[in-house]
Amino acid sequence: MTIKSLVSEIRKKQSFLCIGLDSDIDKIPPHLLSKEDPVFAFNKAIIDATHDLCVAYKPNTAFYEALGSKGWESLKKTISYIRTRHPGIMTLVDAKRGDIGNTATQYARAFFGELGCDALTVAPYMGRDSVEPFLEFENKFVVLLALTSNHGATDFQFSRIGQEPLFREVIKKALTYKNAERLMFVVGATKAEYLKDIREIIPDHFLLVPGVGAQGGSLEEVCTYGMTKNVGLLINSSRGIIFASNRPYFADSARIKAKELQGQMAGILAKKE
Amino acid sequence: MTIKSLVSEIRKKQSFLCIGLDSDIDKIPPHLLSKEDPVFAFNKAIIDATHDLCVAYKPNTAFYEALGSKGWESLKKTISYIRTRHPGIMTLVDAKRGDIGNTATQYARAFFGELGCDALTVAPYMGRDSVEPFLEFENKFVVLLALTSNHGATDFQFSRIGQEPLFREVIKKALTYKNAERLMFVVGATKAEYLKDIREIIPDHFLLVPGVGAQGGSLEEVCTYGMTKNVGLLINSSRGIIFASNRPYFADSARIKAKELQGQMAGILAKKE
Repeated sequence: MTIKSLVSEIRKKQSFLCIGLDSDIDKIPPHLLSKEDPVFAFNKAIIDATHDLCVAYKPNTAFYEALGSKGWESLKKTISYIRTRHPGIMTLVDAKRGDIGNTATQYARAFFGELGCDALTVAPYMGRDSVEPFLEFENKFVVLLALTSNHGATDFQFSRIGQEPLFREVIKKALTYKNAERLMFVVGATKAEYLKDIREIIPDHFLLVPGVGAQGGSLEEVCTYGMTKNVGLLINSSRGIIFASNRPYFADSARIKAKELQGQMAGILAKKE
Repeated sequence: MTIKSLVSEIRKKQSFLCIGLDSDIDKIPPHLLSKEDPVFAFNKAIIDATHDLCVAYKPNTAFYEALGSKGWESLKKTISYIRTRHPGIMTLVDAKRGDIGNTATQYARAFFGELGCDALTVAPYMGRDSVEPFLEFENKFVVLLALTSNHGATDFQFSRIGQEPLFREVIKKALTYKNAERLMFVVGATKAEYLKDIREIIPDHFLLVPGVGAQGGSLEEVCTYGMTKNVGLLINSSRGIIFASNRPYFADSARIKAKELQGQMAGILAKKE
């Protein structure tokens, strides 16, 4: 996937929605549990019902690893299903990996190779040699944690290093890494007031923005401060969409929630143009 | 596993060696590749040859995930083999996970439940709510990244927050987390000069120390500054032991390398007593 094809998908669908496939086996509709692969059956139904409304799907590895090797199979089938049926949609695996040198290369192979996803979230704490191995893959993207949407973000991400909070240091330093043009950054919607500041240092990079809705972030505000001429935003919603209902018509309910967000996004894009 | 049983294992074996099972399929002896599960066959041979010389095994998930669901099976079989045959040995999975709330709980279930390991490495960047869910499990340990042994560690870990480098802030803040007595910390052997400083804030917590040998860290130096009355150290060696040879007698070669380190450790422990 290229930035150009992502932007064209956004324009076509009038959407910059990313749907988080946090497909917790304890939360999927009970009638699916008798299926051979309940998690994949759930994901497939969600994808079939929402693919024209979003530009990315983001499974979080935790919910798949909790099921062991079977979970890994469900994840692989999900990525493969999206790539085959909807090649324009970005597959973004939320794994928050971070390790060094050859170990990082193994992770990169696991995700970009074995699984075949387009993008992967990566944690910055270990620095350059834990990020650059992921940046070596052409047409693949590394989504680096910068400013997360959780309460614990205040523990270290706002710590002042001289005049700068750590999250800005992370972004600035990452821009010096080799192939930095393949970077995107996680910035939580609950921290929208920092987006203006962040756009001063990364006017063009795409941001993955969790925390709209359930966590209290405002879509309008994120767009006011974070949108670029190429949109530059992927707004993630997970539970709010995929667990909108756990009845047999859950996929229709998910579609309604996704449509609601896509409608708001279309409105914002129309106003911008 | 409890700290008491870990310390008793250390005393019994006169060793605080942790063997890293970074069992890269491209590096294991070629004659194993015809086995049904080459990675497990390799791990089993290494474990059979070294279990009396070490107190922990540390598989790094990257090398298993690179093989997809098959790799996850190899990892599970490895953990289960150690736990069944050598219940006194700690199984420490090097996964460097970090995510929030319910997602972190899913990871904790994946590793402490599904896989059944005793300890897990965790990354600190997202703060309290990304670490505490892992600390809820009795007799399980969270090994938090503090000061890593790689070059990239200088990117952020030494950044000054007021008078303190970030890695000290990480340790101090983590001590305020619920169930902090279940924490251990990663401190690289290449940074031994900081161990004295670190021991001022955590006089008793166990440290996992990578970087002795290949990366240039000194065992003597690490012990001088880092050892506590309960030893308080797990010294990791991976490639230096497991890839000592890739010939049919690779396990004997691994034993020789492990024995070398264990011998040095026994000497240091004898001097301390």
